[in-house]
Amino acid sequence: MTNFSWKIDYQSKNNNARTGTLITPHGKIRTPAFIFCATKGALKSSTTNLAKDNNTQIILSNTYHLMLQPGSELIANHGGLHKFLNWNGPMLTDSGGFQVFSLGHGSVADEIKGRTNTKRSKTLLSISEEGCLFKSYLNGSLKLLSPEKSIEIQRNLGADLILVFDECTPFHVDKNYTEISMRRSHRWAIRSLNRFNSFITYKPSYGSAGEQKIYGIIQGGIYEDLREESIDFNLNKIDTFGIAIGGSLGSSKEEMYKVVNFTAPKLGNKHPIHLLGIGDPRDIWKLVKSGIDTFDCVSPTRLARHGSALIKGSLGKKNIKNNEFANDLSPIDINCSCYTCKKYSIAYLHHLFKAGELLGLQLITAHNMYFMNHLMQLIRNSIENDSLDKAEKEWFN
Amino acid sequence: MTNFSWKIDYQSKNNNARTGTLITPHGKIRTPAFIFCATKGALKSSTTNLAKDNNTQIILSNTYHLMLQPGSELIANHGGLHKFLNWNGPMLTDSGGFQVFSLGHGSVADEIKGRTNTKRSKTLLSISEEGCLFKSYLNGSLKLLSPEKSIEIQRNLGADLILVFDECTPFHVDKNYTEISMRRSHRWAIRSLNRFNSFITYKPSYGSAGEQKIYGIIQGGIYEDLREESIDFNLNKIDTFGIAIGGSLGSSKEEMYKVVNFTAPKLGNKHPIHLLGIGDPRDIWKLVKSGIDTFDCVSPTRLARHGSALIKGSLGKKNIKNNEFANDLSPIDINCSCYTCKKYSIAYLHHLFKAGELLGLQLITAHNMYFMNHLMQLIRNSIENDSLDKAEKEWFN
Repeated sequence: MTNFSWKIDYQSKNNNARTGTLITPHGKIRTPAFIFCATKGALKSSTTNLAKDNNTQIILSNTYHLMLQPGSELIANHGGLHKFLNWNGPMLTDSGGFQVFSLGHGSVADEIKGRTNTKRSKTLLSISEEGCLFKSYLNGSLKLLSPEKSIEIQRNLGADLILVFDECTPFHVDKNYTEISMRRSHRWAIRSLNRFNSFITYKPSYGSAGEQKIYGIIQGGIYEDLREESIDFNLNKIDTFGIAIGGSLGSSKEEMYKVVNFTAPKLGNKHPIHLLGIGDPRDIWKLVKSGIDTFDCVSPTRLARHGSALIKGSLGKKNIKNNEFANDLSPIDINCSCYTCKKYSIAYLHHLFKAGELLGLQLITAHNMYFMNHLMQLIRNSIENDSLDKAEKEWFN
Repeated sequence: MTNFSWKIDYQSKNNNARTGTLITPHGKIRTPAFIFCATKGALKSSTTNLAKDNNTQIILSNTYHLMLQPGSELIANHGGLHKFLNWNGPMLTDSGGFQVFSLGHGSVADEIKGRTNTKRSKTLLSISEEGCLFKSYLNGSLKLLSPEKSIEIQRNLGADLILVFDECTPFHVDKNYTEISMRRSHRWAIRSLNRFNSFITYKPSYGSAGEQKIYGIIQGGIYEDLREESIDFNLNKIDTFGIAIGGSLGSSKEEMYKVVNFTAPKLGNKHPIHLLGIGDPRDIWKLVKSGIDTFDCVSPTRLARHGSALIKGSLGKKNIKNNEFANDLSPIDINCSCYTCKKYSIAYLHHLFKAGELLGLQLITAHNMYFMNHLMQLIRNSIENDSLDKAEKEWFN
């Protein structure tokens, strides 16, 4: 009857790491998996074809950006996002909450880097029980995003996996605000689910999305009692296909590891567990051990645009623009089997950046995608061989 | 013994149009053919793989740009341009002359549009019998480009087809200057050939280029007696594999048609005939009838970067950025079989440009490449069916 399923394939003997299979109407995802961001309905500098060639399993788009430009109705008229952006694989949309708040309060990057005073103008105007009032970053027009509205837009977009609408609290708010916000997000989750369930028999006349499944989101910031309460809410008070870990993950990597390792192991096997917005390979090695099944982040494609090619080891990347690479005839990584590494030298990539050729972004983006998918494959294999720690050690040496 | 050959496959009964086959060590080219510009060693916003998928037969790179950045020695160290930029098909390099002079005097676009006063700083410092002294557009350093130097660089680059060094005169110089310049270019052609022939048994230790063939260039501006003299020089005084038509083609399309139709029919069947720098489909339909075998121009990829998709008809292009396309669910051309037209709507492409997504450039570039190669295929078929005029009429209706 349903075209969705989730099962754990292998549970590590040494830690909470696990492999699984998530089946959607557009194909299956072997987990742990990385989800690439097609924020505005396009992978940055990559066709979806090339993403598939580089073993990409699943991509996501952002409700916030697409509702403002080109609008979800146009995408529904195409028959949904899959057809609009030509991706026939699994797809996820977020609820828009993250961007409304991160663009409103300041970005996660600002948080992680401890910048509390950013120059960018705040677009978030007010948060009420009803939802959020904000200004479009494109033309300043006023927009209200509510749980119902977010779900309606995500229905128009038609991704396989969608998210409840939530407030993503910044790290610098206190426990009291975090608690108030969490409880409102829980009420918003119930409203999101009510709207979502009203669609189960709903067939849009424009022939948009087929069946969809929804994820709840665990809030609570860095406060363990709040995380406990949100875990209980998501496991026992609502019924969702998947669960995402959201909210503030603190102001340092150590806090993030602590929050995730406190939360994920309590979530059991019934749901695929997604960690929102984390994509550094160094973090991924750590966090799969807490039981995270999927990750997403803009970093692999964003780094590529700045000339950084992902590599193994503690350094994590090579900045192709550095002059030391001007005459380097070797590939980014001699052991990498991606097309960029098989066919192009670092000197060529360096030349492309120096000459302002967009092809440089394309070729490094392709490498970074292949790299992330290869990393996740290696992690899956290592979990199933009970050799995750060993593989992690080799990766960094 | 030689890995090169040229033969006419079919000579039109109605005009000077012809089809031919040009064989190089990196593959064959069916003519009339279009040569795409990888000016700085990269097709703009396209991998070479994608160019091949879109039926591209041959590409060219520019000696002028590559000698300044990254330098021809680095490319030689890669084993030549084919390996540097990952193109295993036929390739041509120009001699650098065109850019030295067009960046020095003002561009061809300036000429065609009649702009004689451009704002850009002139980089050409002096022309002497020895060669040209110019300033690098990158760092202002002084460079001398001579016939010998141009051929040495082109030997390092290692394209299959290379050009003699010449001065490309601007349209606004008088007959006297055109004559002086033409005769100097003829002397430079002899020096180019002497240097080229000294390489025939030369095997660079760095393992660069294999066998190469050289093109002469016909000068003479818009003056028929000078064109006659240059035709005689190229046919009877020197011995080259191919012949290019260069120099000023006048200040209007009508003058260009007149110059080409005066020159090309006198060149016979022995050489493949290349017309330098022309790529508008409306011109190509006209000029194949004079006997032009190959064309090159930056326009298909440059137009794509500005959002213009090539289409049949007298208009010639659609500007995807226009608001009228915001909700257009149809492809660029319903009858086009390129991947962009098969998989994406104009509304999506419009969205990509509006959202500043580089993927938009990539997808329109791919369409424009396919379009040009499809055009040349159609022209070849029409020549061989003696239906070129009919096909041209249908194209514009």
